[in-house]
Amino acid sequence: MSRTQHSQRLSDDRFFPSEPAARAVARRLYEHVRRLPIVSPHGHTDPAWFSENRPFADPASLLVVPDHYVLRMLYSHGVPLESLGVERRDGGPVERDGRAIWRRLAQHWHVFRGTPARLWLTHTLEDVFGVGERLSPESADRIYDRIASCLPRDEFRPRALFERFNIEVLATTESPLDPLAHHAAIRASGWPGRVITAFRPDPVVDPEYERFAENVAALGRLTGEDCGSWRGYLRALANRRAFFAATGATSTDHGHPSASTADLSTSECEALFGRVLSGPSRAEAEQFRAQMLTEMARMSLEDGLVMQIHPGSLRNHNARVYERFGRDKGADIPMPTDYVHALKPLLDRFGNEPALTIVVFTLDETTYSRELAPLAGHYPALKLGPPWWFFDSPEGMWFFRRRVSETAGFYNTVGFNDDTRAFLSIPARHDLARRVDSAFLATWVVEHRIDEDEAAELMVDLAYGLAKRAYKL
Amino acid sequence: MSRTQHSQRLSDDRFFPSEPAARAVARRLYEHVRRLPIVSPHGHTDPAWFSENRPFADPASLLVVPDHYVLRMLYSHGVPLESLGVERRDGGPVERDGRAIWRRLAQHWHVFRGTPARLWLTHTLEDVFGVGERLSPESADRIYDRIASCLPRDEFRPRALFERFNIEVLATTESPLDPLAHHAAIRASGWPGRVITAFRPDPVVDPEYERFAENVAALGRLTGEDCGSWRGYLRALANRRAFFAATGATSTDHGHPSASTADLSTSECEALFGRVLSGPSRAEAEQFRAQMLTEMARMSLEDGLVMQIHPGSLRNHNARVYERFGRDKGADIPMPTDYVHALKPLLDRFGNEPALTIVVFTLDETTYSRELAPLAGHYPALKLGPPWWFFDSPEGMWFFRRRVSETAGFYNTVGFNDDTRAFLSIPARHDLARRVDSAFLATWVVEHRIDEDEAAELMVDLAYGLAKRAYKL
Amino acid sequence: MSRTQHSQRLSDDRFFPSEPAARAVARRLYEHVRRLPIVSPHGHTDPAWFSENRPFADPASLLVVPDHYVLRMLYSHGVPLESLGVERRDGGPVERDGRAIWRRLAQHWHVFRGTPARLWLTHTLEDVFGVGERLSPESADRIYDRIASCLPRDEFRPRALFERFNIEVLATTESPLDPLAHHAAIRASGWPGRVITAFRPDPVVDPEYERFAENVAALGRLTGEDCGSWRGYLRALANRRAFFAATGATSTDHGHPSASTADLSTSECEALFGRVLSGPSRAEAEQFRAQMLTEMARMSLEDGLVMQIHPGSLRNHNARVYERFGRDKGADIPMPTDYVHALKPLLDRFGNEPALTIVVFTLDETTYSRELAPLAGHYPALKLGPPWWFFDSPEGMWFFRRRVSETAGFYNTVGFNDDTRAFLSIPARHDLARRVDSAFLATWVVEHRIDEDEAAELMVDLAYGLAKRAYKL
Repeated sequence: MSRTQHSQRLSDDRFFPSEPAARAVARRLYEHVRRLPIVSPHGHTDPAWFSENRPFADPASLLVVPDHYVLRMLYSHGVPLESLGVERRDGGPVERDGRAIWRRLAQHWHVFRGTPARLWLTHTLEDVFGVGERLSPESADRIYDRIASCLPRDEFRPRALFERFNIEVLATTESPLDPLAHHAAIRASGWPGRVITAFRPDPVVDPEYERFAENVAALGRLTGEDCGSWRGYLRALANRRAFFAATGATSTDHGHPSASTADLSTSECEALFGRVLSGPSRAEAEQFRAQMLTEMARMSLEDGLVMQIHPGSLRNHNARVYERFGRDKGADIPMPTDYVHALKPLLDRFGNEPALTIVVFTLDETTYSRELAPLAGHYPALKLGPPWWFFDSPEGMWFFRRRVSETAGFYNTVGFNDDTRAFLSIPARHDLARRVDSAFLATWVVEHRIDEDEAAELMVDLAYGLAKRAYKL
Repeated sequence: MSRTQHSQRLSDDRFFPSEPAARAVARRLYEHVRRLPIVSPHGHTDPAWFSENRPFADPASLLVVPDHYVLRMLYSHGVPLESLGVERRDGGPVERDGRAIWRRLAQHWHVFRGTPARLWLTHTLEDVFGVGERLSPESADRIYDRIASCLPRDEFRPRALFERFNIEVLATTESPLDPLAHHAAIRASGWPGRVITAFRPDPVVDPEYERFAENVAALGRLTGEDCGSWRGYLRALANRRAFFAATGATSTDHGHPSASTADLSTSECEALFGRVLSGPSRAEAEQFRAQMLTEMARMSLEDGLVMQIHPGSLRNHNARVYERFGRDKGADIPMPTDYVHALKPLLDRFGNEPALTIVVFTLDETTYSRELAPLAGHYPALKLGPPWWFFDSPEGMWFFRRRVSETAGFYNTVGFNDDTRAFLSIPARHDLARRVDSAFLATWVVEHRIDEDEAAELMVDLAYGLAKRAYKL
Repeated sequence: MSRTQHSQRLSDDRFFPSEPAARAVARRLYEHVRRLPIVSPHGHTDPAWFSENRPFADPASLLVVPDHYVLRMLYSHGVPLESLGVERRDGGPVERDGRAIWRRLAQHWHVFRGTPARLWLTHTLEDVFGVGERLSPESADRIYDRIASCLPRDEFRPRALFERFNIEVLATTESPLDPLAHHAAIRASGWPGRVITAFRPDPVVDPEYERFAENVAALGRLTGEDCGSWRGYLRALANRRAFFAATGATSTDHGHPSASTADLSTSECEALFGRVLSGPSRAEAEQFRAQMLTEMARMSLEDGLVMQIHPGSLRNHNARVYERFGRDKGADIPMPTDYVHALKPLLDRFGNEPALTIVVFTLDETTYSRELAPLAGHYPALKLGPPWWFFDSPEGMWFFRRRVSETAGFYNTVGFNDDTRAFLSIPARHDLARRVDSAFLATWVVEHRIDEDEAAELMVDLAYGLAKRAYKL
């Protein structure tokens, strides 16, 4: 199933500039990184895949049903989520036939033209399953059968794919309440694949999270700390961070609606904590999240975990979809996001600490040149995450590089994150990022803005070194 | 007057990339669409032109005086609007000599370098009037004479131009108070040109519109409904929508300062309606407009009219120009525009209806990637209008495609709108859009982001099919 | 020390497109401007250099210590400002060894890859000092020695460099309280170099400026006006403007946090002035600055000084750096900036005056296409300054041209500003701007959006004519 056999669709020059001089440089730069191992420091794959190593089920439940990029586009063209096999909260009937779901995707394949979802899936189909023809209503069944025939085979089980994908390390994301049993099982199994967790405390630090108070109570039980008190709560969090770190975690992750931070006095914190446990106002919830980012930064300075902030998504914008299907079904919409004022309280406390690493992401591209690059290009503690979510795409990456690099420099960024729950798309995503970076740097080389030998060194950092160092991997 | 005869100025490769491989693809893509009929689903031409079919007057009153793009640029360089023949509200003296006005344009032709106004006018001069030389103080009179000698001829009358321009359908925009007599006359005339109206209710739904209360009263008289009551007012609007639809309209259009929508209870609506009739506050006016967008969406779901929202212009920013010359003289300035919160009330009601089409436009490019593409890439009812007004230009189109396509996909957009009152510029505008789209897709083809056969199919949709389908033409 | 001798590093095609047709046009366009004199209408060099004409001290204190672009990037990578020779406010110990500072720069040279600071410094090293090798830990001492050996020589003194740089006119920026002794000395010296001042009244018009009330009192003493009264204060300002103009100044400059303007009645102004002298609230300080922009515009209409507004920087974002090192150490961060509402009061008063020139700058790129280009493309009094500060870079310039030119046109812009205190970088900065403009226009030429003969004429305006005319030089 080598590439050459199925190269009808994936050009080896994809994403490179067409101008021959720039393309030649891009090819050379890419050669420096194409075979480097994948470092995936942030994502949402399921650790159970690697602890249990069971074959994946059918093509649709692997490639369509869990992919919110695919769901959102199909839904926007009037395809009901039920007909795509998305479970209803009320347990009502949904499509169970993977082949029927796959055919629906094939029927709408043209609406994905030019989208990253299509680029990734095309790469996956060819590179993982050897599919050399375009998806269409006519080819849908053939391709479905081919994938379905692969999945039961040993070389398509999660661990085999992990190895074939040349993944050096893969981070998942878990709640502080998670016992991390799968991660323990992976380590105990003797399998050498490095699958680590990341500490995502939203369920216990965001008062607007589903069942927040219950979660905090559970945190208390889990740690033996008094989570009715501010100090006990902080100790409990420190305790779980230590547990996560001990299992291999090197980072935390924070998915807040805004980037607000606060630096309140202890007595203010104690009072606020009391209020958030008993039903806070919107403003109190926001202030508590803000304070918790600063607390998390403080703990990061102590325990060395790298801190990631992912703000700016208005979750569940579509009330009806949320009611019927729940979270993460493609109905999250970005909002304007402030950083320059929002991060100041945290930065006033910890921004000057070179030993601290805070990786900031955004869904608001206007902040790249106006706020994020100037902040990261000044504060020792701040680094910029790669273009995220809607911007994890060729145009998104070009825009990020163009608007960020001159002010922040490349060395205040942290390489690529795939941020995905679609395990099979990981090679496609990293390859796309490497190619776009090669293309971007190639244009700077041919315009004499950077020398080629330095661009080559930089490419290795963008594809590998920066992520390793920033995330302490 | 064939193109080859006068090709000194208009290159057939204009707006295409210079890189030979990309240019070759752009040429091939453009060949698929260059001769397609023009579908103009939204604009502001005068239906009287086509009902009366009288020759256009002199070159200046045809090409300069009504064009706010031209007026604004000349005014910014200190040319008084009076000297350009713009009527004063107080009836004071203004330039009446078309040739003098034309010479003023010629004298300042260099300040238009690179602007779309100049690109369109250059195309019009060459392609409609066979002018093969550049406008300049030296050539001004010659060109003026050439145009002036053409205008009285039969082949330069509105209907002949309509046919020569290969226009399949042209939509104008009228107030609900308009009797649509010209549209009736066109249909009655037996001339096969398809000129339809669009329902633009701003004068009767925007409490800050000039003479709003009088307009609502007139609406009541026109429809025989009691427009002193909320229910009667809604019936009157539905009545006029039906009348417009019966004459061929397929769409409505809403030019609000913001994209705010609301979903109030009937009793709240009744109370609010009472207040707006008797001098509302700014906030009440805004809330009423917001509610009316949701009412219009509801009616669209019933009567099938496609709904267009054009928000974000601060009209009449220049108080002195407005006082002296009135509306639409180039003094409208875009404002930051929110969609993610503003549209939510409407979308909560109707966003999940695949049978509804709401086309949203913007004057705030920051919303393309942050709000509009994610919204349109999820909600079945939402589509994105083309780059509008200040962004109806090569750079504007490239920016739109780059920031929108990966998240919304091409099939949640609706093709091109010329949105113009400058009838003669319509072929230039559509041709420019087709060329820029060919160029844009060509770069994606040579970067292997889309296959050429699919790009060719897509081009036909961008230039023709999407507008036909979205606007039900 | 001719260019050919040291061309190892600076390609003569730098910043030009790699596509051969576009590159050929860019080369031709650049030939029209490469040898034009430098007009530097806005910057922050020290007039003492030219009045005293003493040799510059060591390489580090010339090229590293005063450059906030260099300081901020090094600081972001954990290099303490003390170790870079930045004076502490408390007089504490800082690095005094220029060679040690230079080595720190060399050690971190890779983090500057692709930044304008590196492009400028590379140009300066080669073109001014004949350094033909890349800075690195290995070459650091050799390069340091080479520069150090040049500095004492006559041809490296400020006046000689001014002449060698082919500077036609250079504007510095001074407070109204400055006696302009250095400018007087330059004129008295008989040296023909034209070094003029610009009137920067922030210390006496911004109530939040350090020691504002003292400054106003000093202004009273200096002018003999009663600066305890609003009218006396205005007379004092007019008096100093006249003094500045008499010494050669042609412009004023205003560095406010926002672009807010106001147009209060005289009695409101009097009351507000009283309050700002005795400790105003934040809102009062903002309103006073807003009013003063309108007052300055009024005076500009009287005395002919061109007005510059530089808004949108949150100064001293890093509290700790400000406390320890003071202003201008790389810790200023841009903020979202409104123009469409903020400028309206001023524009309502003076926006229609063709005799007035107000040059507006921004640190918020989102305003280019949404607000600034539409405003400048309409109001006779308004012009757009070049991309400023973080955007004085190849990508920044491309973005500016792309987002501004179609709506504002090129002739509502004012050419290039280097805006620098780094005297030796002036040729590098102007050359970079000329090259990027050549590259930009070349792409428009090859896409047939502008004819080459017109682009050539325009290039001369962008590089020379627009600045001369806008700034009345």
